[in-house]
Formats: sequence, structure tokens, C-alpha cells
Amino acid sequence: MRSAKILSVLLFCTMLTSSVLASEKVYKLKLATTWGPVASPLIDAAQNMAKYANEMSSGRLVIRVDASNKHKSPFGVFDMVKGGQYDIAHSTSYFWKGKDIDTLPFTTMPFGMTAPEQYAWFYHGGGLELMQKAYKKHGMLSFPGGNTGVQMGGWFRKEIKSVDDLKGLKMRIPGFAGEIMAEHGVLVTNIAPGELYTSLERGTIDALEWVGPSMDIAMGFHKIAPYYYTGWHEPGAETQFLVNIKMMNKLPEDLQKILKLSMKLAAFDMYTQNYHMSAMAWDKMKKEYPGIKVKSLPREVMKSLKKVNDDLLTKISKDHPLLQETLASQNAYLKKAREWTKMSDYLYIKDNL
Amino acid sequence: MRSAKILSVLLFCTMLTSSVLASEKVYKLKLATTWGPVASPLIDAAQNMAKYANEMSSGRLVIRVDASNKHKSPFGVFDMVKGGQYDIAHSTSYFWKGKDIDTLPFTTMPFGMTAPEQYAWFYHGGGLELMQKAYKKHGMLSFPGGNTGVQMGGWFRKEIKSVDDLKGLKMRIPGFAGEIMAEHGVLVTNIAPGELYTSLERGTIDALEWVGPSMDIAMGFHKIAPYYYTGWHEPGAETQFLVNIKMMNKLPEDLQKILKLSMKLAAFDMYTQNYHMSAMAWDKMKKEYPGIKVKSLPREVMKSLKKVNDDLLTKISKDHPLLQETLASQNAYLKKAREWTKMSDYLYIKDNL
Repeated sequence: MRSAKILSVLLFCTMLTSSVLASEKVYKLKLATTWGPVASPLIDAAQNMAKYANEMSSGRLVIRVDASNKHKSPFGVFDMVKGGQYDIAHSTSYFWKGKDIDTLPFTTMPFGMTAPEQYAWFYHGGGLELMQKAYKKHGMLSFPGGNTGVQMGGWFRKEIKSVDDLKGLKMRIPGFAGEIMAEHGVLVTNIAPGELYTSLERGTIDALEWVGPSMDIAMGFHKIAPYYYTGWHEPGAETQFLVNIKMMNKLPEDLQKILKLSMKLAAFDMYTQNYHMSAMAWDKMKKEYPGIKVKSLPREVMKSLKKVNDDLLTKISKDHPLLQETLASQNAYLKKAREWTKMSDYLYIKDNL
Repeated sequence: MRSAKILSVLLFCTMLTSSVLASEKVYKLKLATTWGPVASPLIDAAQNMAKYANEMSSGRLVIRVDASNKHKSPFGVFDMVKGGQYDIAHSTSYFWKGKDIDTLPFTTMPFGMTAPEQYAWFYHGGGLELMQKAYKKHGMLSFPGGNTGVQMGGWFRKEIKSVDDLKGLKMRIPGFAGEIMAEHGVLVTNIAPGELYTSLERGTIDALEWVGPSMDIAMGFHKIAPYYYTGWHEPGAETQFLVNIKMMNKLPEDLQKILKLSMKLAAFDMYTQNYHMSAMAWDKMKKEYPGIKVKSLPREVMKSLKKVNDDLLTKISKDHPLLQETLASQNAYLKKAREWTKMSDYLYIKDNL
């Protein structure tokens, strides 16, 4: 009788031990970023996410963040997560347009939504669902990863007064915006980031687009180019978390939740952090270089850029129904959201100028 | 020897069991809101927070959300959390200015920051730390709880063309903005929400301020007042979580983290949800009542409101160093942040009108 009791206690203990071991199991994940190790606020979004997930899971989720200097393949992170060498990436969607054109519209679109408008679209206007459709084919989930707000149109050595002034202009402006510029006769060049300052200083290029005050300040362009143009091409650039679906499905349910919500939180954080960094950086630049002139492109130029943008989109989306669906969804949402933006934030700022 | 082994196994099991029981302990918390049970998006912020905390803790945090119809004391939630009858409240800070004037500036201030500017101030400009100072005296922590964006200036039956038009105007506009209006000869009235529509329709009042399209639409004011004035008095109203410090300190560290981050996440969510709701509601109102005119108060009126605002703030902060410190911090931050807002979101919208 006594030994039977001991046995049953031992049995209970064994069950308990195995259940504890399961619930205490540590999951070690690897995350690869497109960014270098000091590229604030981009790299912070990945690191904050890892920190949140670790803290909220009492250490059961350990996410190692490898910056691009570690894995040596900034634009390889899509394939590395798809192939399972990494579990998660932090990057941004429009980098993958060459692999799959359906992924183009989930970062930002020229003449498109601002960050608050786009977050409303992602979370309440069907955006997140469309993004999952685009990435499911690749065995991945995709989530917003933090927004840079309106990106500036770039630093110019001379003023742009007409469409003609774009002809022959040598400019570093990558991606889809570069294609729009090329259609206007701009000689679009691709120069490594480390050589941009010297190229602009020596006149090898006449203009360049980077991000906005938060990240431009460290590049020093404000010291050598007097015109800082307002943005038109990336009004709310959202970075992105890519997650390998198979890995995600292996996590216990609570850790899946913690991971997803840590990503969502780190995304909002980056938007706020970038707002702060830009405000402080612009204040500093302006004080040290009071000659910087903030300019908007003339209306004629804006209209022409918009027309080429629309034509190019019609052309490239021709045989891509999901891309068409996404662009239509964005345009319909923008129409409504912009009316609200105009009567709220826009008029509030205007009335208080 | 054999029984010694069994004993040591049993001892280990006992330790394990007690550790498991501690880590699996369920904490049941009670949250009281100022809002009613269907007041979206306000009530959703509290409910989303409870849901996030529950999911991420695998059910170890169970938060019961009591809307105001349950506890019957919408403006008693401060005292109920302070006294420990409730663990958490979801409300907003400027409701407590009668109890402690230091709490006034943490919701929004007339002519103050927009939501993105204010989030940057809270999380990177020292705002959160100042807010903790104001609430520590009351044994509570306070965290941002979700933003309504720019609140509209209100529904008016007739146009306001000058400062003189304010004299004798009967208007429902509570709080600090009401005091500014009263200084301009407005007869500020306090009418229960359920009677507002009839009062406006019958001319008992000439104007009223509510929230913005997201919450105004259900009230139906757009059916009876043709002028919808843009906002000046609440450019980014942040709701608030209040947390009893003693309760917080009793929670295990991981649950404290989960609770804090769930609040932060629910706050951002409400901002996004409200943006969506306002965009959709305004689109609907405008289609059904195309006669609604969106108006800004004349510059002369805005200047006068601003002057009275500044004078009143100087007066009420006279003997309150923490309030002075907070207002100074907000003003200094706003100066820098607004420069960035103007060259980013503001000019982007303007260039694309």
C-alpha cells in the first residue's frame, strides 16, 4: 500500500515535470536585418521586438538579431527566411519587387498614404490581409515593422523650377521613384552609401534621396547641398517583419501571440522614435546651417510625376491580379482617409501657422 | 539507500510543484472605465488591453473590464483605483484637474501637440516621466491609453465670423476649453449627453463640442447643425490607464511587463482605430448630408482664444511647480516637433491637394 502511494506520487511528479519542461522550453530564434548595426531607428525596431518578446515570455523566446555586417547579405534576408536559415527578417517590402511584384505596395507608394492613414489601412482597411496573401506563396508571414513617416524628396545642389530642370539631372534615387524620375530624363545612378557625400560634394551627382532628418543628419548632406525638397515618393515608408510560417507554427500558442504583438509594438515604437529623431535632427541642422531652404517641387512637376507614376503602375500591374487588388484597395482607402486627414491634422496645423 | 533516493526524488518533486504553482498562479484584476459599454473606440482600448494581457500571459492575467453602467461612477474611477477598490482605470487625465491641477496637461492642451507629436514627447521627450511624477503622490502609475486624434471644434447652428459672435453664444463645451470660451462671453452650459441632440435641435444651445466624426456620427448632430468647425482645443486627446502601484508591485516581473506593454499596444491601436472610424464616419456623413460646411474659426478668433489660453495657464500654474515644468516641457518640445510636422505631413498633404 505504502509503495503504491509512493509510485503514484512519482507518476504525478513525472507528468508534472514533463509539463513544466514543455512550458519552460526556450525557443531560440534568429533574426536577420537588412540594416547595419547602428542604423537607428531601423535596427532598434528589430532589437526592441526581440527585447519585448524575451521579457514578456520570461526568457522562453530568445531572438538573436544579426545586423547585415554579421550575415553579409542585406538583400538576401527574404531568401534566408524563406529557406529557413533565419526565422525572421527585418527589412522592407518594396525591396522584393524584383522577386515578386505583388510585394511592391506594402512599404509606401508615391503620392500614397501617410503613416497614420496607412496604419488605419493595414489594421482596419484590409491591408494586413492583402499583405499575407502576397507572402503566403513564399511560406512567410509579413507584419508592419515601423514607419519612417514622410521621407524627404532629397538634397539638391540647385533648385528645380520646371519639368525641364529634371532632364540630365544626375540623381541617386533607387526603386520605383527612380523609375519615375528616369522617365523624366533624370540620369538615375546607383552609388554606395559610403561614397554619396563625396559624389554630391564633387558634383558627380546633382541630387540624392536618402530618408529624412533622422537618418540624413549623420550623412552630412546638409553641409553641401542647400535645397531640401519635401517628399512625394515615400509618404509613409513602413518597414517589415518577415516570419517563416513553419517556424511560427511550431511555437506554442502564447509565444506566437507574444511574438506577433511584440512586432506590432516595435513597429509603432519606431514610428514614434523616428518622429522624435527627425524633429531633433532638423532643429540641429537648421541651427548649424540656417541657409538650408525647404522647397516643394513646383505643381507642374508634381503633376507630371503623378501622371508617370499612374501610367507605370497600370503597366506593371497588368498581369498581376493581386497587385491590382492591393493598389485598388489602397486608392479607395486613401480617398476616404485623406478627407479626414485634411480636416483634422492638416487644417489644425494650417490654422495655427 | 533505496528509500533515501525515493525521498530525494520526492523532495525535488515538492520543490518543483510549488514553483509550478507559483508560476501558474492566476491574477484576477478589475478595471473600471469612465466610458459606457458601447463607446467605441474608447471602451475597445480597455478591452483590447485586457485581451492582450490574457493571451500573452497564457491566462495568468485575467482582467475584468467594468464599463460605467456597471460601477455607476464614471468620474469616480480615479478614487476607486487610488483606494484599491479597482486595480486599473481607463479614463483620461484632464478629468482630474479639480483634484490635482498637475494632472491637467497629460490628455491634450489647446493649441498643443498632435497625436504623433505628443507620442514622441511621451516616449522620447520626457512626458511619461512627468506624468508619473504627477500620479505618484496618489499611489498610482499612469500610461497613455489611446488617442482620438484632432478633436473637432464642434457643431454650430450659425457661422462664427468674429470674436463678437461668441458673445452670448450658448454652447456645451466642458473643461478647460469651456473656461476659455467663457472668457469670451460664451454661455457655457452643461447638458447630459442624452439631451444634447434635442437641445441643439430646439435651440436651447447654439453649438456643442463632442469628439470627432468617429463618435459624433452616432449622436446625429450633423443632421441639425450645418457648420462643423475644425479643432483648436484638443489636438490630440490621449486617454489614460491608471494603475494602483501596490497591486502592480505584487505581480511577478513578467506579468508587470505584459501588463505595461499591453497598455502601450492598446493605446496605439485606439489611435489607429479612431483614425479609421473617423475617416469612414465622415465619408458617410458627407454623402448623406452634402450641405455640411467644414469651417475654421477666423484668425482673429483663434488669436484671441490663444491669448486667453496662455493667460489662464499662467494664472493657474502660478503656485504649481510640476504643472509649470510640464507646460514648459510641452512648449519646448512642440516648437521643435511642429517644425518637422510642417515640412513632413503638412507640406506633403498641401503639395497633393
